[in-house]
Amino acid sequence: MNYKMIGYLTGQMIRILGILMLLPFVVGIIYKESASFIAFAVTAGVLILFGTLITLKKPENKEIYTREGMATVTATWILVSVLGAVPYVLSGEIPNFADAIFETASGFTTTGSTILNDIESVSNACLFWRSFSHWLGGMGVLVFILAVVPQNDTRTMHLVRAESPGPTAGKLTSKMSFSVRILYGIYIALTALETILLTCSKMTFFEALNHAFATAGTGGFGMTNNSIADYDSVYIDVVITVFMLLFSVNFTMYYLLLSKKFLQVFKNEELRLFLAIVFTASIVIAVNIIPIYGNFFKSFRYSSFQVLTVISTAGFATADFTEWPFFSQMILLLLMFIGGCAGSTGGGLKVMRILIMFKTALREIKCVLNPRSVVTIKCDGKAIDKEVIRGVSFYFVVFMLLLAISALLLSIDGHDIPTTVTAVITCLNNVGPGLGEISPSGNFSGFSSWAKILLSLDMLLGRLEIYPMLVLFTIRKK
Amino acid sequence: MNYKMIGYLTGQMIRILGILMLLPFVVGIIYKESASFIAFAVTAGVLILFGTLITLKKPENKEIYTREGMATVTATWILVSVLGAVPYVLSGEIPNFADAIFETASGFTTTGSTILNDIESVSNACLFWRSFSHWLGGMGVLVFILAVVPQNDTRTMHLVRAESPGPTAGKLTSKMSFSVRILYGIYIALTALETILLTCSKMTFFEALNHAFATAGTGGFGMTNNSIADYDSVYIDVVITVFMLLFSVNFTMYYLLLSKKFLQVFKNEELRLFLAIVFTASIVIAVNIIPIYGNFFKSFRYSSFQVLTVISTAGFATADFTEWPFFSQMILLLLMFIGGCAGSTGGGLKVMRILIMFKTALREIKCVLNPRSVVTIKCDGKAIDKEVIRGVSFYFVVFMLLLAISALLLSIDGHDIPTTVTAVITCLNNVGPGLGEISPSGNFSGFSSWAKILLSLDMLLGRLEIYPMLVLFTIRKK
Repeated sequence: MNYKMIGYLTGQMIRILGILMLLPFVVGIIYKESASFIAFAVTAGVLILFGTLITLKKPENKEIYTREGMATVTATWILVSVLGAVPYVLSGEIPNFADAIFETASGFTTTGSTILNDIESVSNACLFWRSFSHWLGGMGVLVFILAVVPQNDTRTMHLVRAESPGPTAGKLTSKMSFSVRILYGIYIALTALETILLTCSKMTFFEALNHAFATAGTGGFGMTNNSIADYDSVYIDVVITVFMLLFSVNFTMYYLLLSKKFLQVFKNEELRLFLAIVFTASIVIAVNIIPIYGNFFKSFRYSSFQVLTVISTAGFATADFTEWPFFSQMILLLLMFIGGCAGSTGGGLKVMRILIMFKTALREIKCVLNPRSVVTIKCDGKAIDKEVIRGVSFYFVVFMLLLAISALLLSIDGHDIPTTVTAVITCLNNVGPGLGEISPSGNFSGFSSWAKILLSLDMLLGRLEIYPMLVLFTIRKK
Repeated sequence: MNYKMIGYLTGQMIRILGILMLLPFVVGIIYKESASFIAFAVTAGVLILFGTLITLKKPENKEIYTREGMATVTATWILVSVLGAVPYVLSGEIPNFADAIFETASGFTTTGSTILNDIESVSNACLFWRSFSHWLGGMGVLVFILAVVPQNDTRTMHLVRAESPGPTAGKLTSKMSFSVRILYGIYIALTALETILLTCSKMTFFEALNHAFATAGTGGFGMTNNSIADYDSVYIDVVITVFMLLFSVNFTMYYLLLSKKFLQVFKNEELRLFLAIVFTASIVIAVNIIPIYGNFFKSFRYSSFQVLTVISTAGFATADFTEWPFFSQMILLLLMFIGGCAGSTGGGLKVMRILIMFKTALREIKCVLNPRSVVTIKCDGKAIDKEVIRGVSFYFVVFMLLLAISALLLSIDGHDIPTTVTAVITCLNNVGPGLGEISPSGNFSGFSSWAKILLSLDMLLGRLEIYPMLVLFTIRKK
């Protein structure tokens, strides 16, 4: 392991985190929130100073491999979750450090679960930092930093491999730093578009920007206790619904659209399955909840929003789905596991994995029934590599074992079974709300400090897709 | 597909089912329960008649392969669940046919879930039939019949392959019909021993026999509304706890013990893991529930019983664990998935699969961290075949997909999420009780008829380990 290089890269991240904190500092100044802007200024200053000191001397050996890449990514995410929490504590907005870490991890991992009982009393600077952390986390703090600080190609490749969410079927251009910039360009463009569209509503520019950040990262932090429900605007609901959909699609699709390869987009199996799931679930739930909302169109407005908020793992809310029929609740609970498409900002297992798992299951059944038959699994017309199929099944096994262990540990905290289990599900999948105490109208404040740290770890494990985080626990052996 | 041979074998099963019904008929006569003994006599007569007619002409082509074996097994289990339900309906004890099918499927699959609100009002003949179905189901209706009706070796092999529960690491003797007899001998001997031991308690011989049947099949039907709790006897609790343990151990172990290969038993990894899980869970829960029971020994009495009733998938009850702390409930919920050892009468995923899954997960993590390392998975000192590892992961994927689909369908019936999800979990794993409405002190009577049929299918899918049941749905294609 090239520890010096890991240290150097981590130092760079710390410095950049400090620089990024100047933005909420500016927000604090604009809104004249002295406690907040001082907190951000002090933290930013210290981080920039430390980051610069660490990165003063460049290591001679700059080579890094997968292990180093994974260790850097993990160290960065953990550091960002801890250091990013400091301003919340300093400003007095979230005095308990475990709470602040939970909120920051929830931000950067784009989960959107909150421990805040009264969001309306939080300063604008902190609200901005919450949403901004979603936006930064969305495309991966590293991909962001790589786009800003170009490195040599080999190194970048390793870092991005640990970061990019899900098993991608298609590839972007081979020049990684170039492709990172394209991704980033699309990300910025879509965020800007949503901000503009939301500004044309009841929302102020500041509200629009924050919600666009939270949508882009599929995070889901709102600015009021009732999330989007407070605006009660069809226009806002529709805009956010559409953008949640756009941000949970594989970004390669936008690259293909820009290259005018429309047929490839149209034929993409993952995209088709994703749209089919979203559409079917929205219709079925809409019919199921007509008795509550009176007519199909109103039902569909709420069902499609809630379906997308869950499957995109954004976690906004316009309705408390725990008051819906159990059938609708079960659909939403299952959608939590699916998550967005591979190569999007969405969390969860990813549609691609679900697709491969379904195909694997079907093939497995065929093989058992006709032992002599050899069935290859195809996706988008191409045979999927055996290693990928194996990897998906094993990932699922590891994921479920982790879920079981986390749920077991969390149950010590003494919350009822639905709350405990869905807390782990929602955190591992980076969704946001769950059932019981953590319903869309509830929050995570009822958990004890150690439980919040455990759930923060689950969020990080889910966001980084488990493996990179485990590197840290095995470093000592080598 | 050799349909004639499937028909012939199924005919034999029907006839034997009819013959077996003569036993509850005798019980009905002894206890002078006219409605019941008439019901059993009529059903038995019709089944024997039909079975004999079907099997009058032996098919010329007697060759059958895996597909035929699986189809026969599945057809038999479904037929047995439906035909075995007839006496319940005819006697008027369970007037609704869906209820009766649920109760019979729960019996033969050794699940032990019940729809009966008042078990004490049920006739002795029907109580006997319930427990006896556990006992028959325990070792597999087919293995039982194979031991009674010897067939040629090749055919037997195929049938047993579809039937034997779990991925067995060790093998019994290659002569299958011989080994079936040994298994069966051990099964009878252990059942007889438990009956004798229980007769030395408050229980009458009839009660002792019924409970021994239910323990042997790891089924769990009791004879009172409060299951074993009504006896409130330390002796009975201990005897049943020990026998639940004995019946959830791989029966190969007894064969090894009889062959004096003690070292092999001692070193068996699955057995060690199973005992470790049982012991650890019992201790941890015992400590957790001391506040309820006052002292450790009383707590341990209840915790070890409930741990074994869940992990062996028997489903008896001496306490309502839904009134225990959530931590204990979560442990029990996870134990439901584990189930007994491979090659036992227990249900669930089987300890062997859990062992392989844990080892796979660890290897997978190692491989991701050190891509060049090749780690083979060993069990009992021997490398596990790659196909087995692959199979276990894929089985888990298929199992969880089935769980998700079943839970989704069942949620239409409108029960709360914990009830719905644990109903599917408990039925797929053949355990018995769950949380919510179906807690140890509740039952399944609240579900609608179609939901009971769905859950019956889940029990059959779980008992046959999914694949054989799917043969029926694909027959038409060929």
